[in-house]
This record gives sequence, C-alpha cells and structure tokens, in this order.
Amino acid sequence: MLDDPLSLTFAALADPTRRAILAQLRSGEHSVTELAGPFAMTLPAVTKHLKVLERAGLITRSREAQWRPCKLDAAPLRQVADWTAGYRQFWEGNLDRLDEYLTRLQARAEEPAEGPTESKGDTP
Amino acid sequence: MLDDPLSLTFAALADPTRRAILAQLRSGEHSVTELAGPFAMTLPAVTKHLKVLERAGLITRSREAQWRPCKLDAAPLRQVADWTAGYRQFWEGNLDRLDEYLTRLQARAEEPAEGPTESKGDTP
Repeated sequence: MLDDPLSLTFAALADPTRRAILAQLRSGEHSVTELAGPFAMTLPAVTKHLKVLERAGLITRSREAQWRPCKLDAAPLRQVADWTAGYRQFWEGNLDRLDEYLTRLQARAEEPAEGPTESKGDTP
Repeated sequence: MLDDPLSLTFAALADPTRRAILAQLRSGEHSVTELAGPFAMTLPAVTKHLKVLERAGLITRSREAQWRPCKLDAAPLRQVADWTAGYRQFWEGNLDRLDEYLTRLQARAEEPAEGPTESKGDTP
C-alpha cells in the first residue's frame, strides 16, 4: 500500500540524515565513506539510509567504479514539487489575507483623525 | 530525532490515504464521518490518520463545534515547497539537457543532406 512512488519518496525524505545526504550530493558524486563523514554513524548505518534513498529513486549508485559512487537523482523531487503545487493557493491565500489586513491597518493609520478638512476657497 | 517539523510533515505525507484526506479538505471543512466516506475504513482508522496530520500541523480541528470539523493548514506544505526548491536546478538541468539534445537532433534532421543549394539567381 505504501509502495506507491510518492509515498516512498515522502518516507525517504522524512529523516534529517537522509535529507543531509541529498544536500551533500548536490555538489556531485560521493562515496559512502565521504557521505558518512559528517555523521557520527557507522558505515552500515549510512548504507541503510542510502538503500532507502535508492529505493525511492532519489540516488543512483554506479555499478562500474569499485567505490560505487552515489549520485543525486532529483526526478522524484519534481513529483513532490508538482504535488505540493496543488496546495500553493492555500498558503498564498493566507499570505494574501495577511497582506490585505496589513494594508487596511496602514490605510486606517494614515486617515486624518477628524474627516477631510474643507477647502478654504479657490485661488483667484 | 524524527520530531523536527519537516520530518513530521514528510512522514505524514508518506501515505496515500492521508494525502487523499488533504485533497478532500481543499474544498473546505469536513467532519470525520465525511472524510471517512470515500475509504473502506473504520472511523477509528480515519481518526488515527487525522491525528498524524494534526501532529504535523497539516490540519486543525475545531474545539468549538460538537462535530469538530477538520480544516486544512497548508503552512507546512510551504516548508516542503521551499525545501524542494533547493533541488529545482537538478531536475530542470536534466530537462535543459534533454531540450538541448532534441534541438540538436532536430537541427541535424533539417540540415540539407549535401550542403546548402546555391541560389538560382535573383528575381528580376
């Protein structure tokens, strides 16, 4: 049931270490040892995270080089962005309403306290 | 460790039923019974999903009305969109490269097979 691609992607992203690994891979390919560097984690623990990312299609691991470098594949993140876009109107709606409210507040602050003053007669 | 807001949001989204509930809430507030409607699921099962969504801040439940309607809160989805935007260049990069490749292919297809034909003279 949770094997649909989008659920796999969201589940893979629901972990700060896995998101940090993806962030590292933005600079290019890295070996498991390089990826493990910033974490107080054993290589098997990092490998486990990589398997989750690989299963979700977020990384690919080369089968050619002996060090099997990991590479970012952003295609599933595009699906996430597309899915999220369907809700954009709701958070932008909130911001619009906040914006309207602030504009109204400002307009009220700028209003003269006792109504418009009358014209004192035209210049000749 | 997995209690950071972004991990909570991603974990809540890693389920097709919960995403379907959010989709239903785009049309406005709904009761649990209404939300359960489309699913072959007991009310307690739906309530469990709602609790996960509520914990991630994706829905709020009114404490006033007796039927405690659920309401979408898209703010955490904005965080998801912002996080995903950091990877946009990678999927767009792929599309750009595909686009370049297709343009090159098309240019080659349109090239005359034996070099440009010479002008046959101007019209008088």
